[in-house]
Amino acid sequence: MTGDSSRPSSAHAPHPAWLPDDAFAAIGSRRVVVAGDGALAGTVAEEVAAATARFGGSFSRLEVGDGVSDADLVLTLSPPVPTSGGPDESFRLTREAGAVVVQAACDAGLLHGFFHLVRLGDDAFDGPDTDETHAPATDLRMLDHWDNVDVHPTMGQVERGYSGGSIFYDDGVVHADLSRVERYARLLAAVGINRVAINNVNVHAREARLLTDDLGDVVRVAAVFRRWGIRVHLSVSFASPMTLGGLDTSDPLDQGVAHWWVRAAARAWDAIPDFGGFVVKADSEGQPGPFAYGRTHADGANMLAAAVEPYDGLVHWRAFVYDHKQDWRDRSTDRARAAYDHFRPLDGTFSDNVVLQVKYGPMDFQVREPLNPLLAAMPHTRVALELQVTQEYTGQQRHAVYLGPQWSQILGFRFWDSAGRAGGSPSVADLATGRGKAVEDPGTGTWRKPAGGFAAVSNVGDDEFWTGHPFAQANLYAYGRLCWDPTLDPGAVLDEWVGLTFPGAPDVVGQALHAVLDRSWETYELYTAPLGVGFMVRPGHHYGPDVDGYEYTPWGTYHFADRDGIGVDRTVGTGTGYAGQYPAPWSATYESPTSCPDELLLFFHHVPYTHVLHSGKTVVQHIYDTHFDGVERVEQMIAVWSEVSALMDPRVSERVSERLAEQLRSATEWRDQVNTYFFRKSGIPDERGRTIY
Amino acid sequence: MTGDSSRPSSAHAPHPAWLPDDAFAAIGSRRVVVAGDGALAGTVAEEVAAATARFGGSFSRLEVGDGVSDADLVLTLSPPVPTSGGPDESFRLTREAGAVVVQAACDAGLLHGFFHLVRLGDDAFDGPDTDETHAPATDLRMLDHWDNVDVHPTMGQVERGYSGGSIFYDDGVVHADLSRVERYARLLAAVGINRVAINNVNVHAREARLLTDDLGDVVRVAAVFRRWGIRVHLSVSFASPMTLGGLDTSDPLDQGVAHWWVRAAARAWDAIPDFGGFVVKADSEGQPGPFAYGRTHADGANMLAAAVEPYDGLVHWRAFVYDHKQDWRDRSTDRARAAYDHFRPLDGTFSDNVVLQVKYGPMDFQVREPLNPLLAAMPHTRVALELQVTQEYTGQQRHAVYLGPQWSQILGFRFWDSAGRAGGSPSVADLATGRGKAVEDPGTGTWRKPAGGFAAVSNVGDDEFWTGHPFAQANLYAYGRLCWDPTLDPGAVLDEWVGLTFPGAPDVVGQALHAVLDRSWETYELYTAPLGVGFMVRPGHHYGPDVDGYEYTPWGTYHFADRDGIGVDRTVGTGTGYAGQYPAPWSATYESPTSCPDELLLFFHHVPYTHVLHSGKTVVQHIYDTHFDGVERVEQMIAVWSEVSALMDPRVSERVSERLAEQLRSATEWRDQVNTYFFRKSGIPDERGRTIY
Repeated sequence: MTGDSSRPSSAHAPHPAWLPDDAFAAIGSRRVVVAGDGALAGTVAEEVAAATARFGGSFSRLEVGDGVSDADLVLTLSPPVPTSGGPDESFRLTREAGAVVVQAACDAGLLHGFFHLVRLGDDAFDGPDTDETHAPATDLRMLDHWDNVDVHPTMGQVERGYSGGSIFYDDGVVHADLSRVERYARLLAAVGINRVAINNVNVHAREARLLTDDLGDVVRVAAVFRRWGIRVHLSVSFASPMTLGGLDTSDPLDQGVAHWWVRAAARAWDAIPDFGGFVVKADSEGQPGPFAYGRTHADGANMLAAAVEPYDGLVHWRAFVYDHKQDWRDRSTDRARAAYDHFRPLDGTFSDNVVLQVKYGPMDFQVREPLNPLLAAMPHTRVALELQVTQEYTGQQRHAVYLGPQWSQILGFRFWDSAGRAGGSPSVADLATGRGKAVEDPGTGTWRKPAGGFAAVSNVGDDEFWTGHPFAQANLYAYGRLCWDPTLDPGAVLDEWVGLTFPGAPDVVGQALHAVLDRSWETYELYTAPLGVGFMVRPGHHYGPDVDGYEYTPWGTYHFADRDGIGVDRTVGTGTGYAGQYPAPWSATYESPTSCPDELLLFFHHVPYTHVLHSGKTVVQHIYDTHFDGVERVEQMIAVWSEVSALMDPRVSERVSERLAEQLRSATEWRDQVNTYFFRKSGIPDERGRTIY
Repeated sequence: MTGDSSRPSSAHAPHPAWLPDDAFAAIGSRRVVVAGDGALAGTVAEEVAAATARFGGSFSRLEVGDGVSDADLVLTLSPPVPTSGGPDESFRLTREAGAVVVQAACDAGLLHGFFHLVRLGDDAFDGPDTDETHAPATDLRMLDHWDNVDVHPTMGQVERGYSGGSIFYDDGVVHADLSRVERYARLLAAVGINRVAINNVNVHAREARLLTDDLGDVVRVAAVFRRWGIRVHLSVSFASPMTLGGLDTSDPLDQGVAHWWVRAAARAWDAIPDFGGFVVKADSEGQPGPFAYGRTHADGANMLAAAVEPYDGLVHWRAFVYDHKQDWRDRSTDRARAAYDHFRPLDGTFSDNVVLQVKYGPMDFQVREPLNPLLAAMPHTRVALELQVTQEYTGQQRHAVYLGPQWSQILGFRFWDSAGRAGGSPSVADLATGRGKAVEDPGTGTWRKPAGGFAAVSNVGDDEFWTGHPFAQANLYAYGRLCWDPTLDPGAVLDEWVGLTFPGAPDVVGQALHAVLDRSWETYELYTAPLGVGFMVRPGHHYGPDVDGYEYTPWGTYHFADRDGIGVDRTVGTGTGYAGQYPAPWSATYESPTSCPDELLLFFHHVPYTHVLHSGKTVVQHIYDTHFDGVERVEQMIAVWSEVSALMDPRVSERVSERLAEQLRSATEWRDQVNTYFFRKSGIPDERGRTIY
């Protein structure tokens, strides 16, 4: 119903997350030179100065080209090279006989190189000689905050926030003290995030004014992020010309409207020269948009794009457009189809500085969905992949769920290869970054560069641990790292996070964290909605089970369970036709219950409870088994944790133990409600005779 | 989730409800004398003066005993007679050759006599000679307001309020202008209400202070009600000695706690000499109570009773005590049993000035419940019957539901007679008023007087029509009238209301209102939860259908529907034993599905969908038929209304039409969700082949 209302005490300093002092020991104990100008080089110099002061190393600040002797580490700008678009964030790392040099064309690269060394620790210096160049997969690595300036009566200070209040706002005002934002920006810079939207995509009246009357507040926030190479974006309301400008229309083809936005953009960039641009949720869940004027989303986005174009500004336009007042009786309407149906016909009509921001699945950040076919359907549009770091549908930071494996699976999916992962066609990561081999698809033609990069909803609040559950920090960490390099192994990313966050912890701690987190996404899936059917959560707040909670609502999220079977027929042959939105071979794979992967069976097919899965189990027995297994796994997580919790910071230990207890309670509730529901409906007993109520 | 957030505009003056100017024409056009002192005699004199000025009659104010000549109507105090307890509210009405005399021992009786004449209109003067004495069935005729001083984050300004804001409070303060309260008090006086609790039984921090720091606000409100013969009560928090008094306990057996309450009561009565007393919701849905200290509810209530006893004050102690954190898996716990199980053992231990306030059913104000067996189980306790005028579970004043017939059926129920209504044993009204023949029950012994009267939750807010739906005024009217005389026919009461509220309207209007309202309670039952099983509403806000909404929650409200059948086994033989809480013969009647009345079958029994009712229909066919019938009835209501709406005040007409449209939409939703749910579960098609989704 609301955000987490039990705001943890701020009596403690915020947890250092993956940047505790000890993470800087390797650099801080060495002789370090920083050479070159630029704000971010200054930031690096400050970091090095602090680390060397703390750990007994030495620090020199030089000009580029000055002679250097006896340095263990040189971080230096190389002569600038001409770049187009954003700053060059790449860096070159060489190591020769233990002496390390980081060179970058731009100071942003120097900053990323510095944090790369922080991650490596002593390995940065102890490794064999090397000469490597590191560059991000995309220059659009963004986090979206769903923070409200005013506390919203039902959604709270942070919509879908589970980590206390906002680090930006306190019920109507921007915090006077932005030191928390500074710490946050540093954490983000350390994982490579370079853009942040600082207000909720549902733009209420108060928040809309950030663009106009309260732009000064945004200037203050942007100044904090700037020191860390991060540009600030704003979510804006498409109705702003009316609600803020007093016009009688927001029609994107109206000249007065267009000019209003031109003036708004001019003011924004005058005040914030590195302002990023606008994020827009239009014609979606009640937000205003171009449909009211009979205009297309391209009309709307392009009008805004023209206003921000002189400043290298972007318009992030969300593709999350569907009928949220659907009649549940109407089986012909399928929410899963909506994004493709709305946007596919518009491919090629968006301006170059419009990024179409597409959620990874066609529904809404479920624990398991097929990939959104729109991702593969817009060859002439810059498409961004949108993920959700905040665990709205994955346990709300009360459950330990490491999402790295999910994201890795999403990023590696290949729409044009039958295996989905291997093969020569582009992965989802390739589509979002514009890397990889160009697609030559009969349906979609050749893909145009550049792409739209990544965006995700942040999970951070003013909670002592930033993220409610201390382990949820790993999701924020992993998101940043996967944006930089989508091919990273999520287990290795977890290793990085453990090493940085718990420096010096005995090996058993790392082993325990892996045991708890490696398969935690799968565990959450086991005890919640089965076989890709989704939802079954309590309406409104979306926490905990309610199998029929959304079944008769206007939200378009149904499972159609009756006494005989369950699932949504989305085939071309007999269903809504959604399966046909995929390119071959996946359209055919999903079309048939025989070839459809088990984990998505109920997303694509309505089958009897007695349908036998590839696993050899019936659907109903699979439901029972997975739900019993899921709870057992949580019990194992608790057992593993209890072995090492005494070795941790007592504050971390206490919070994790409290959350694990809630996870077990909630998982048990999921198990019993789901099993009881399907036993009552099917009448089929559990083969193993376990307790179903 | 919240109260009605669409607060209607206050641009219009409040609707006059049942006291439009024209309702005073009969008195106002005659020669009227008012004789006698006392505040309420003064109120009567002002009313008569205004009416005669408006309608051309004459008004004289005399002393008691002064000679009167040429008067059509004399309202006079008779020499006072000694009374004990509250004021004597009775009056004597004589009519001789068209000259009417109202005599009363107390000025309260004079006020009631005056409004009796208003109700009669010209019939008061035109009837045959008569000599009648009128007295209320009980001197405890109370309305409880669930109004919050502060707007509550989820419950709003008025908990379960569907009529805009509060007439008392505006987000944190008592209204400066209490003219709306004055109008309200006059309306209540006209139907005989004489006590009002002015704040929510869920007493939050701000509201608790009404008893202490903000007593001055209560003084202001009480002064308004006093002119209309109405005493003010406060809901208080049992934890007040701690939260307001700074003590470290609220243990009722602690002397410091008892003395805190003695002082609080002394201050209250010092400030408000006719203060009524305290209403307490203790150990209920999270409210504090004596259980925390291992004390009984008698310990708690009696401690408060001692504090208010010197002032003739009362403690209304609610019997709505149950485990609201029940485990849905535990079939042995039955919320329906809770009130009886908690309070029956305490019979005879409550002080004389404690009123145990018992909801009419064992659950929570459902459209159909069996009568609460606790009403028949407390022979040595003053028991009040609690009704709910606000339509929390009966359409929230968006649906036209006249509750008079429900209340009349409740009031007339006889626990010790097999027919339930006829026979010589006391009715529920008798138990609540202390009238009727004393019960000599083997289980309960002889009943002690006095009784506890009536209480009900008000449905009034600052809405233009007071009650959201203009027709919901009829419920407030009927509640007052049935408190005064529980034997009144609800159809006749509706006639009174129509005649007063729409004076001069053509007969077809009255006929239409009867057609819309007479069976509207039954209509609402038809399209909602079937056969007494209850709930099936959306959790939280309780509006609209959600068949499984409460099925797996901790609230103790389940239907246990599976693919074979539905209902709760509350028998002694095989169920929770609840049926055994009734005296004979009803314990036996409810025990067997053969003798259990159809309308309560699923409250007492779990039966197959193919079980044949007394009506000859199967349970599932009954569900289908009633839901189709219910919607058809709403369509008929709209057809009837459309014939006369043009004859009404356009403001009334517009509001009613808007609400009827919503009722039809909602009823259709109920029909389709309930029918679909049971068709999916049972697999049994409708015999008549109508559309089920």
